[in-house]
Amino acid sequence: LVKVAVDAMGGDYAPGEIVKGAVEALADCPDLTIYLVGKEDLIRQYLEREKFPKERVEIIHAEDVIYGEDNPGLSIKTKKESSMVKAQLMVRDGAADAILSAGNTGALMAGGTLFLGRIQGVSRPALLTIIPAFENDSLVLLDVGANMDARPEQLVQYALMGQLYAQNVLKRDNPSVGLINVGAEHNKGNEQARKAFELIDHEVHNFNGNIEGNEILNGKVDVAVCDGFVGNVLLKTIEGLSKGLFSSLKEEFTRNWINTIGASLLQNSFRGLQERMDESEYGGAPLIGVNGICIKCHGSSKSKAVKMALSKQIHPLVQNRVNDSIEEVLVETNSCRKEA
Amino acid sequence: LVKVAVDAMGGDYAPGEIVKGAVEALADCPDLTIYLVGKEDLIRQYLEREKFPKERVEIIHAEDVIYGEDNPGLSIKTKKESSMVKAQLMVRDGAADAILSAGNTGALMAGGTLFLGRIQGVSRPALLTIIPAFENDSLVLLDVGANMDARPEQLVQYALMGQLYAQNVLKRDNPSVGLINVGAEHNKGNEQARKAFELIDHEVHNFNGNIEGNEILNGKVDVAVCDGFVGNVLLKTIEGLSKGLFSSLKEEFTRNWINTIGASLLQNSFRGLQERMDESEYGGAPLIGVNGICIKCHGSSKSKAVKMALSKQIHPLVQNRVNDSIEEVLVETNSCRKEA
Repeated sequence: LVKVAVDAMGGDYAPGEIVKGAVEALADCPDLTIYLVGKEDLIRQYLEREKFPKERVEIIHAEDVIYGEDNPGLSIKTKKESSMVKAQLMVRDGAADAILSAGNTGALMAGGTLFLGRIQGVSRPALLTIIPAFENDSLVLLDVGANMDARPEQLVQYALMGQLYAQNVLKRDNPSVGLINVGAEHNKGNEQARKAFELIDHEVHNFNGNIEGNEILNGKVDVAVCDGFVGNVLLKTIEGLSKGLFSSLKEEFTRNWINTIGASLLQNSFRGLQERMDESEYGGAPLIGVNGICIKCHGSSKSKAVKMALSKQIHPLVQNRVNDSIEEVLVETNSCRKEA
Repeated sequence: LVKVAVDAMGGDYAPGEIVKGAVEALADCPDLTIYLVGKEDLIRQYLEREKFPKERVEIIHAEDVIYGEDNPGLSIKTKKESSMVKAQLMVRDGAADAILSAGNTGALMAGGTLFLGRIQGVSRPALLTIIPAFENDSLVLLDVGANMDARPEQLVQYALMGQLYAQNVLKRDNPSVGLINVGAEHNKGNEQARKAFELIDHEVHNFNGNIEGNEILNGKVDVAVCDGFVGNVLLKTIEGLSKGLFSSLKEEFTRNWINTIGASLLQNSFRGLQERMDESEYGGAPLIGVNGICIKCHGSSKSKAVKMALSKQIHPLVQNRVNDSIEEVLVETNSCRKEA
């Protein structure tokens, strides 16, 4: 059984799209149970529009909401009756295996660390995301924003957690790891990257060495590792560039009637490419390293993203007990380092 | 008079495309004189194919070449007879105002700092580049790889140098600056970014605050500042994604005959967009902050990039005495900080 506490009130399209996506996932995962946490009346309104197995959905009333503009650290401490905090406490108390939220990212990360705690052996949780790749469908990128000043040992942990993730969610065998850096040679980069190279090289199987910016998206590795500052800037730049290029193309398509005809002939191809670049195929970014599965969906998530996050990420992560594997691998790696 | 020492032997298409681009720039800049540094026989062969004012081109023989795979620090010290070192020494000795090279980046940067020295007031030189923007044509990004562990004070200097560059090369009035970061608020980011925000906010006019990854390419600011590690990863990711998207599009175009017709109708639009995303409009990246103008062209540069770097960057930089302005502004900023 996989039990998920869904923060029904977080996100630009909450609760409608969140509720819709959550119940849609039930059809894909027969052993899934959903707790919709939030304002009961409102959730019930949206639930009435959907068809689903009633016994696998429960509403957990929460009076308050953490909004996007709320201070993360403060709101998780003061808004105890919010849907996000209540959902997290359900995971902490064992009533649910996972939380999904499209709400305030900072609050979810702060709450994840505070309420759920870290998996034994993990020094700092990371925000992980799956990005599209040109050659190899997709890859795992972490950290994209949880830890701004990562120590080299923490990058080793990201590599190991990313591998377990790629194995269980992307179904890769013996996933390869690359360290994001400015050149191929081991002595390239800043102090953090040089030290991290040495450690990862010793402690992680199938390490492909440094990868440069232009190699990330070609799918050369299954897991790309960097600190939260670099990863966050990188991820947002990729989103911005890809969005900008597609809207520049759309502008061109309506410039004159010849272009309009050409564009209509290519319509399917464009849609296909745009969908490939679309992150919602996996629906969200887990805060990996906390006790319990904690997935952040994009604030602009619609039902598809919520459904995908539940069926393609949360479900295999819970079912395969990935957090147990993380603990095992990290505790062993840490103890080997101490002995060395 | 603007005198430029061109390393004719550096780059994938040297010396042919380098020589061609250099003499082509002469038509655009009537006060330009070119010194082609490298193997005399070889250069002469290529020169014979071109038409140009003979009195404005001189060959300076250099027996040796620094290759792409050479160790940067070692090669500039041991290969004294190389075209790159000879060209740099011409700038150091006042025989030329600027050096242009498409050769080994590390060697050019190491040599630039070693032979030319820093402008008074500059703590570390930065590699600067002009990247395309969707809304505002283009912007200045620095540092893209000279200084891996930049101190906050150094990011202030990048902001000031970037502004002078945007003024003189992009012809922007009162250029705005953004600090690349993970969020809008002043307390966001890693330690380096938080401290840099405070300093830039005090010491730089027209500071627009933090900009996130997705805002860089929309042209929100004229100058985007970050350390050399982040900038290098960022720049290469932009290149890789943009290249990947265009080649995915090209693949789609030949998938079937309907697509082929559609693509042929849209041909001009695609070419236009691809050219806009092409970096060669400004032709190269200066190492800014060294005594003398030092421009790195991409290893794969063809004649157009060399010509553009000469006419659109080196020429205005020398003519407007931008390095004098850098010295003036930086010395003043440094002394105000000491007094404060």
